[in-house]
Amino acid sequence: MSLPIVEAAYKKEKPETEQIPFGRTFTDHMFVMDYEEGKGWHEPRIVPYEPLTLDPAAMIFHYGQTVFEGLKAYRTDDGRVLLFRPEKNFERLNLSGDRLSIPPVDEDEVLGYLKELVALEKDWVPEFEGTSLYIRPFIIATEPSLAVAPSKSYKLMIIMSPVGPYFSGGIKPVTINVEDQFTRAVKGGTGMAKTAGNYSSGYQAQAKAAKEGNADVLWLDGVEKRYIEEVGSMNIFFKIDGEIVTPALSGSILQGITRTSIIEVLKKWEIPVTERRISIEELYEAYEQGKLEEAFGTGTAAVISPVGELNWLGKKMVINDHEIGALSQELYDTITGIQRGRKEDSFGWTIEV
Amino acid sequence: MSLPIVEAAYKKEKPETEQIPFGRTFTDHMFVMDYEEGKGWHEPRIVPYEPLTLDPAAMIFHYGQTVFEGLKAYRTDDGRVLLFRPEKNFERLNLSGDRLSIPPVDEDEVLGYLKELVALEKDWVPEFEGTSLYIRPFIIATEPSLAVAPSKSYKLMIIMSPVGPYFSGGIKPVTINVEDQFTRAVKGGTGMAKTAGNYSSGYQAQAKAAKEGNADVLWLDGVEKRYIEEVGSMNIFFKIDGEIVTPALSGSILQGITRTSIIEVLKKWEIPVTERRISIEELYEAYEQGKLEEAFGTGTAAVISPVGELNWLGKKMVINDHEIGALSQELYDTITGIQRGRKEDSFGWTIEV
Repeated sequence: MSLPIVEAAYKKEKPETEQIPFGRTFTDHMFVMDYEEGKGWHEPRIVPYEPLTLDPAAMIFHYGQTVFEGLKAYRTDDGRVLLFRPEKNFERLNLSGDRLSIPPVDEDEVLGYLKELVALEKDWVPEFEGTSLYIRPFIIATEPSLAVAPSKSYKLMIIMSPVGPYFSGGIKPVTINVEDQFTRAVKGGTGMAKTAGNYSSGYQAQAKAAKEGNADVLWLDGVEKRYIEEVGSMNIFFKIDGEIVTPALSGSILQGITRTSIIEVLKKWEIPVTERRISIEELYEAYEQGKLEEAFGTGTAAVISPVGELNWLGKKMVINDHEIGALSQELYDTITGIQRGRKEDSFGWTIEV
Repeated sequence: MSLPIVEAAYKKEKPETEQIPFGRTFTDHMFVMDYEEGKGWHEPRIVPYEPLTLDPAAMIFHYGQTVFEGLKAYRTDDGRVLLFRPEKNFERLNLSGDRLSIPPVDEDEVLGYLKELVALEKDWVPEFEGTSLYIRPFIIATEPSLAVAPSKSYKLMIIMSPVGPYFSGGIKPVTINVEDQFTRAVKGGTGMAKTAGNYSSGYQAQAKAAKEGNADVLWLDGVEKRYIEEVGSMNIFFKIDGEIVTPALSGSILQGITRTSIIEVLKKWEIPVTERRISIEELYEAYEQGKLEEAFGTGTAAVISPVGELNWLGKKMVINDHEIGALSQELYDTITGIQRGRKEDSFGWTIEV
């Protein structure tokens, strides 16, 4: 079974440098599939990357019924193209979709379509150090109706964008503000789903943090405003007195695929790693006792983003002297090594396209 | 200053009955205005109601940066067309926009454009009892970029839809489920903003409630899961032992324009009305003591939606024997009377188009 493909008449120029701004350049083609009540998901196809035409009453514009994913295709030194645990993304797409009352897709089937799309656009996977092809699957509600109810039609699309290295010139630990006013998510809400509304709701906190010289925000739980949840749009890990601690999935934290992979790597290395509730007070106490050894965010974009400084209600925690920690570096090298085919993939995480 | 108008070549048929399904039929024209960083809001215009063309990477599809409003135009018995407190809607549009990092519009200016649009589409305001022209202003982020940051471009649109009566055959009290698992909003979140993500996040709770025979959901606060917030997408009022109580605006409750109007009417009538925290336990206690006399939701769609029954953790509160209360009826008659020009508008709430 092969997908119908409408080939783009005009092929765009591919970036000739590693300096590619994130998410602004898109490949020549995209994947589209439609859903209609009674008919299910149908008409999977690859078409030229082109504007979408939607009724102004399409539900996506009014009630935010939408979910998305983010993953990457990597080029190896010998020119092959690898995907990193892509099945996890479609598993999570359905998990998010369930929370937003969006009908599930056949995960294997859509992964197959993604592979066809990546194969067609293989030349778009950049080869420069640290670059990759960012892949954005997303589903939007398309029914033209202002009724506050689940849509009867949807569109699943996959668009792809070549991206530069997250850190140019090597990893740099960032300064983060612990947000005490705004809330990202709360138990019973949509925090564990990858859905649009979770992201723009953080812009004010981001702007406030940036004003005070912080690169990002550390979110606390919405109930007690004490327990650490995520950093910006990444999961967060701490090395405290030799032990690795990351907030347990609480229902309001996104289940990051890099997070899961880091935990699996640590377990394999027999380094103690615990998923549990951790309060900002506990973290500060550990810091004061000199036990807060490393801190890092994890996500598809950066893989590992070390935290060099945390600002919390006027208190400053400088972590590992603003330097990347030994474990953070080792985890970064290991995961990116597997992703780029430079290290042995003993976990079986990569899929060649 | 008059708006540029591109007139629709084809005029649609207007509904010839009061049985108009909500939000599915749209008028011949819509209002559009664009925003670009550095240029501000520009190019206000009236164009035929037509599909929107957007890049698949337009930020609205990915990060939910969007706000909306809902108001109505009413036809009076003598054929005039009235708007009900429309300035409040544009005030709230900017309030919501601030939370979502969307640049503000000039409220007076946009109200002027709305009036021009309604005047052009005057024949679309239906005359049947209980019908009206529903007006939906909304702003969407249009910049094609996957960066998690505020958009540099936006589109403000106003679309309009003739709607039938909320209750056909007179007001009917509804049965409501008190939601104990899902959360609508929490302090520090976006609950007080009219933004897309707040609505689809309630679909699962709605479905759960409907399964058990409930028409809607009563939301509790996200922190303690005790304090009453809203019902469905309406505000909620209770008459307890002669006093009217409505949850105080907590930062996670939408500031309803009908809510505000009801409070002002009650004050004028010298009926005691209090905005305060009220827990579901307190409500149940009042019920057990026979003091819960009336309950009703308020919103643009229904104006007053009486609650005949509340289901909370297996406990059932039957309110006023499933009948509409005298005060609920009087408030309904008063507000709808003002809206339709049948009662004296001593508050100066209506604007003739």
